[in-house]
Amino acid sequence: MSKILVVGSVAYDTISTPGGRAENILGGSANYFSLAASLFSEVNVVGVVGEDYRPEDLRLLEQRQVDLSGLQKVAGKTFHWEGRYEFDMNEAITVETQLNVFKDFNPTLPEHFKKSPFVFLANIDPELQMRVLEQIESPKLVGADSMNFWIKSKPESLRKVLSKIDVLLINEGEARDLTGNWNIVQAVKEIAAMGPRAVVVKRGEYGFVMLFEGKYFILPAYPVSTVVDPTGAGDTFAGGFFGYLSKQPDPWSFFHFKQACVQGCLTASFTVQDFGVNALIDLNWAKVEERFIEYKKVIDCLN
Amino acid sequence: MSKILVVGSVAYDTISTPGGRAENILGGSANYFSLAASLFSEVNVVGVVGEDYRPEDLRLLEQRQVDLSGLQKVAGKTFHWEGRYEFDMNEAITVETQLNVFKDFNPTLPEHFKKSPFVFLANIDPELQMRVLEQIESPKLVGADSMNFWIKSKPESLRKVLSKIDVLLINEGEARDLTGNWNIVQAVKEIAAMGPRAVVVKRGEYGFVMLFEGKYFILPAYPVSTVVDPTGAGDTFAGGFFGYLSKQPDPWSFFHFKQACVQGCLTASFTVQDFGVNALIDLNWAKVEERFIEYKKVIDCLN
Repeated sequence: MSKILVVGSVAYDTISTPGGRAENILGGSANYFSLAASLFSEVNVVGVVGEDYRPEDLRLLEQRQVDLSGLQKVAGKTFHWEGRYEFDMNEAITVETQLNVFKDFNPTLPEHFKKSPFVFLANIDPELQMRVLEQIESPKLVGADSMNFWIKSKPESLRKVLSKIDVLLINEGEARDLTGNWNIVQAVKEIAAMGPRAVVVKRGEYGFVMLFEGKYFILPAYPVSTVVDPTGAGDTFAGGFFGYLSKQPDPWSFFHFKQACVQGCLTASFTVQDFGVNALIDLNWAKVEERFIEYKKVIDCLN
Repeated sequence: MSKILVVGSVAYDTISTPGGRAENILGGSANYFSLAASLFSEVNVVGVVGEDYRPEDLRLLEQRQVDLSGLQKVAGKTFHWEGRYEFDMNEAITVETQLNVFKDFNPTLPEHFKKSPFVFLANIDPELQMRVLEQIESPKLVGADSMNFWIKSKPESLRKVLSKIDVLLINEGEARDLTGNWNIVQAVKEIAAMGPRAVVVKRGEYGFVMLFEGKYFILPAYPVSTVVDPTGAGDTFAGGFFGYLSKQPDPWSFFHFKQACVQGCLTASFTVQDFGVNALIDLNWAKVEERFIEYKKVIDCLN
């Protein structure tokens, strides 16, 4: 079975929405990604947690055969993010970020992680992303995410990462910030010119735009009538995307990249239906496939 | 040939965008709608212009066999809207609205307009929309648009219109305002419960959401890499939508309504590529069909 390595945050989040509040729930890009990607393949996690990290949160990943030997446990508290959503569920407002043990995170890969064929560098400091990438031996496919904070504070390091990866998965607002171009059709072209063969722009309820070797693929998200908490949708998308690709003997085709986008999008549509990772815990392959059938009807303009 | 009646604004606009400025150019919902719908069918226009209205702007519609006998010419100046777009081309900022002759507009239909089988009530005072509707004899299909201003200032009149029409075409923000519901999947259901058998929410570059007798149809817009001026895209969408439906012997099917959305969306994708109605002047059926072929590739998840 193919292995996917992910490096990212492992966190406890406190989230307020118009419909409710959840305190200190499991979060972080590596958790969302792993729970989604492990529906398809084996996942290797690289990250750091503090002494307060709950054993049941480790078990959650272990039950999915996620390899946690790259998850360091150090003195101090786990990374904590507090955010809220108001009327507009597309936009998270950060209330507080406590880096805690994440502040001195130095990702070190266990020997058996270094041959992971698929690598996803979730949204962390681009210098750390590079440090992980340098430890990997001839990966088959490398993807990354980033965010406004790094686009502004470490543009050169980020550019270096972009020149080394195959796929960038990024939010729409961030694609605009990265290029200074409001038009997303142009922005993805400009990002592709920075290195990646494929650029995937995540648009929340509006779905995604992918540019793959000069060709566009654009679809809306699956319509969800009760969005409880959008946190982690982007990382879930990446998990479904890499999960799908990791199962293909030859992932480098427009067709497979399109299917990967759809699988990412559908997996993410479950995440938003509950707080934190809750909706991912009981998710299985059959439920995603069932939703795919519904999705195809919603976007079908031919029949 | 089927006839489509449209009542709406006929205007001169002054528009500023990050890329340029155009002064006193032809605009107004009835013009955008007519230029789009006349690609498919004969159009009857009901509206009002002032003494300053340029003869060549009348000829533009006459060349498309648009019947202007419902277009009143009265003393005073034509309706004038001034707006600008900043970095975000999805949002028009109104600089100034001069109602001028539109202030006392009282739509009166010529006798031969009263049997128009297809009727589109563009975004005007819902009381005027009702006055037009009352003059129509047994229409086949009636659609309407509205906007925040009427949602807030004349909610009861608007509710009455909604109870009398078959299709509402409305912007996403307005659908949220009308229902007080941020979730668009729910919002369209709530609007359908107010009367219309079909609700079409226009989302700019994100395309549209249609609810037709309980069934959803959702697609993104055709990707346009140079958006010059988004003004009129919504009215063009309505023109393409009604134009397509007016050509169907039995328009009341999910399939035809889906095609109507796609035709509306594609026609609108031309409008945004130039200032005002410029891109609609030379548009023809073949160009729309050509773009449809490209569009199907961009949204195709099956091949």
